[in-house]
Amino acid sequence: MRGRLRTFGVALVHHPVKNRQGAAIATAITNLDLHDISRSALTFGAQCFFIVHPVHAQRAMVERLVEHWTIGPGGRRVEDRRQAMSMIRPAHDLDEALRELGSEGPAELWVTSAEGRAGELAHDEARRRLAEPGPPVLLAFGTGWGLSDACMARADVHVAPVVGRGQSGYNHLSVRAAAAILLDRLTMDRSPFDGSR
Amino acid sequence: MRGRLRTFGVALVHHPVKNRQGAAIATAITNLDLHDISRSALTFGAQCFFIVHPVHAQRAMVERLVEHWTIGPGGRRVEDRRQAMSMIRPAHDLDEALRELGSEGPAELWVTSAEGRAGELAHDEARRRLAEPGPPVLLAFGTGWGLSDACMARADVHVAPVVGRGQSGYNHLSVRAAAAILLDRLTMDRSPFDGSR
Repeated sequence: MRGRLRTFGVALVHHPVKNRQGAAIATAITNLDLHDISRSALTFGAQCFFIVHPVHAQRAMVERLVEHWTIGPGGRRVEDRRQAMSMIRPAHDLDEALRELGSEGPAELWVTSAEGRAGELAHDEARRRLAEPGPPVLLAFGTGWGLSDACMARADVHVAPVVGRGQSGYNHLSVRAAAAILLDRLTMDRSPFDGSR
Repeated sequence: MRGRLRTFGVALVHHPVKNRQGAAIATAITNLDLHDISRSALTFGAQCFFIVHPVHAQRAMVERLVEHWTIGPGGRRVEDRRQAMSMIRPAHDLDEALRELGSEGPAELWVTSAEGRAGELAHDEARRRLAEPGPPVLLAFGTGWGLSDACMARADVHVAPVVGRGQSGYNHLSVRAAAAILLDRLTMDRSPFDGSR
């Protein structure tokens, strides 16, 4: 049921990401992103969770939050939150995160976005690939309106977007929900709905 | 791939839920719950999203937030948020939500918690049942440390918890992540990992 996977980490990127008009911006850290995504990352077996932000003061804030929930009062009070928040690593940019994750060789950059893209990997195929031997995988999510075009262009793998079943083709999950669902889909084996599918 | 499902709604319950010690409490509304879970609910085809709270002032706050994101400035500016937040219905208690969802007959109450329970329904079985003809289904999630024992006891169906693959058996997803994953697992058909499973 739960074969071995490659080492993988999660990254939440705050720059360069897009605004509604598609221009490159930096977004601010959202406290609940740290909590929710670290808990999901730990649940599904990720090695670490990088918070990517180029602004020193924002990374310092992440460090203060993590300190509170690990060696500080929060961590002493809530053991399960301590375990999750211990996975967080502030990083200046994706290169720093890739270097840290792939300390014995280059890590692969896997990205996702809400929009489909030619050559994207379906989720069952991505799951299969994550279960094959290979370099560590950094699964990166963009805040704002998604990873910049340059980020997308340099990625090794484009994972298909999560598409639901709403009648309208609605496709606007929060990054916290999208990360949870993709971690589930990419790491957990499936039983099919029934024998015919 | 996407057979018809029964009508279903999502409920986020703020009372009666448990605190860390298991005592019944009411929790406060969290703004991001409204946004994240409404977006997930719309993505996966839910009919509506009930915010269950017995305190009038808390329900009034929900109404103000929803107004901002539907007929107010937020809704005029962000169409996709308007669509999601339009699904929100404040409700005094689960009975009010069940009555509203099952306007032509009683709705079924399906609950989940982070803990396993005898007689719980596995996710593929729950998915199969949701695809069979039957009354509307209200899928209820608890805030705090989960739905009270009385809530759990009155439910028609106990859906199995989401269990990940972390080595430590870590099982502490946020309610936003758990709702996203369960909506995905209960409404979307699966392709198996490979032919042998």
